Amino acid sequence: MYRYQEIIRLHHTDAAGVVFFSNLFVIAHNAYESFLESCLSLNKILSEGSYILPIVHAEADYSLPLTLSDNITVELSLGRIGNASFELEYVIKNDNMQIAAQVKTVHAVQLKGCSEKKPFPEPLKNALEKL
Amino acid sequence: MYRYQEIIRLHHTDAAGVVFFSNLFVIAHNAYESFLESCLSLNKILSEGSYILPIVHAEADYSLPLTLSDNITVELSLGRIGNASFELEYVIKNDNMQIAAQVKTVHAVQLKGCSEKKPFPEPLKNALEKL
Amino acid sequence: MYRYQEIIRLHHTDAAGVVFFSNLFVIAHNAYESFLESCLSLNKILSEGSYILPIVHAEADYSLPLTLSDNITVELSLGRIGNASFELEYVIKNDNMQIAAQVKTVHAVQLKGCSEKKPFPEPLKNALEKL
Amino acid sequence: MYRYQEIIRLHHTDAAGVVFFSNLFVIAHNAYESFLESCLSLNKILSEGSYILPIVHAEADYSLPLTLSDNITVELSLGRIGNASFELEYVIKNDNMQIAAQVKTVHAVQLKGCSEKKPFPEPLKNALEKL
Repeated sequence: MYRYQEIIRLHHTDAAGVVFFSNLFVIAHNAYESFLESCLSLNKILSEGSYILPIVHAEADYSLPLTLSDNITVELSLGRIGNASFELEYVIKNDNMQIAAQVKTVHAVQLKGCSEKKPFPEPLKNALEKL
Repeated sequence: MYRYQEIIRLHHTDAAGVVFFSNLFVIAHNAYESFLESCLSLNKILSEGSYILPIVHAEADYSLPLTLSDNITVELSLGRIGNASFELEYVIKNDNMQIAAQVKTVHAVQLKGCSEKKPFPEPLKNALEKL
Repeated sequence: MYRYQEIIRLHHTDAAGVVFFSNLFVIAHNAYESFLESCLSLNKILSEGSYILPIVHAEADYSLPLTLSDNITVELSLGRIGNASFELEYVIKNDNMQIAAQVKTVHAVQLKGCSEKKPFPEPLKNALEKL
Repeated sequence: MYRYQEIIRLHHTDAAGVVFFSNLFVIAHNAYESFLESCLSLNKILSEGSYILPIVHAEADYSLPLTLSDNITVELSLGRIGNASFELEYVIKNDNMQIAAQVKTVHAVQLKGCSEKKPFPEPLKNALEKL
């Protein structure tokens, strides 16, 4: 499990006074990027690598609203891992470590410029399995 | 069914060259707001009304990437409607009217300042059932 | 002068109940993209063309807050045009056509992959001078 | 001077491969919120306090592009401070501590629900003068 923290900023909120729902997907993705950086360079994979990891599914369940200045924790763990895809699960907790939302993203593993699915690059598979 | 159109702008895209996944939730919500405005004032519900409609679940399946200047169409329809919640379904089509993504949001119906679920306000129920 | 319209959506607003200041730069840029599309393909310039038009300066003066569902008008006009740069001016008006903000962006004209400034490509210059 | 750090994430970038210009205003505001939190609760001022601090002007000069995974530093300092307004200046540096952008925001000091300008609340003035 990988732990990531972020503070809710004004730009995350909307006129209803709480975090706009889509911003929890943004924050979950920040946690994923932070995790990748901790093992290998996402930048490298994206800019030089031959692989892309497009998101093919995303979902979230919202249980508690988050508000300005909340110091949230994202607990990222690996869900199912297939031949050419993997699932990431994110538990998002508020200041009091209560679950505010649960997010899931499903990523395909593809060769760049080609919609064919591909077996995992080893460094990525190793990194994910450490989660 | 309610039809909404929007053009993909630079700020929707990311360094991978396509729309960042969370922005399709933003665009789906734009379609929902546009629909509500077409029957009753969302602004009124939010600012004066006694009801709030928090999103308790959201999900998306992505099938085709969207890119800068794509003129997309969102087809919004009503999914299940319960006693104190409703589901909205959004089919997002690209320039060529191919399905690029399918989004679902689930909304609870609550009295403001109170987490108790509540029966639907009539004008909202009527509006949804026209979808 | 080029006229562009957009409706303020929930995601533009923040917990203070009004549009978050940086989103008027987003909306101004939407107006600029819409203008470019009306004469030539921005997509083409970005993806195939040899030119890029990076923003080197941006500024905004805010006079009235904008709120959810405001139907705003952006009036885009050309400011100074130099040898290798141009200024765009945006007057942003609210529902009642009162000025809510004035935005300016300054764009450099550069060859891709090269920080040298370059004379204007003709189709762009012609398009701007029609503003 | 207050120092703030943030890492460039995918959602900050656009299809041109670099940070979308308006996102540096978002990041500058994050630095400002982080600073306020370090001395007094921004949340409190916004939600309970009688004061609001609307941005009346914002500007940025961009000198170097920022890209995915850049670990940037924002150096926040106080510019001019008036009777009922103050200026904040942000120097944004890239991974190599080169200046990538300089941002300025001007904030009015107002009583909530009233567009009249007001003398500074003491805790805010004290906090700003420590910058």
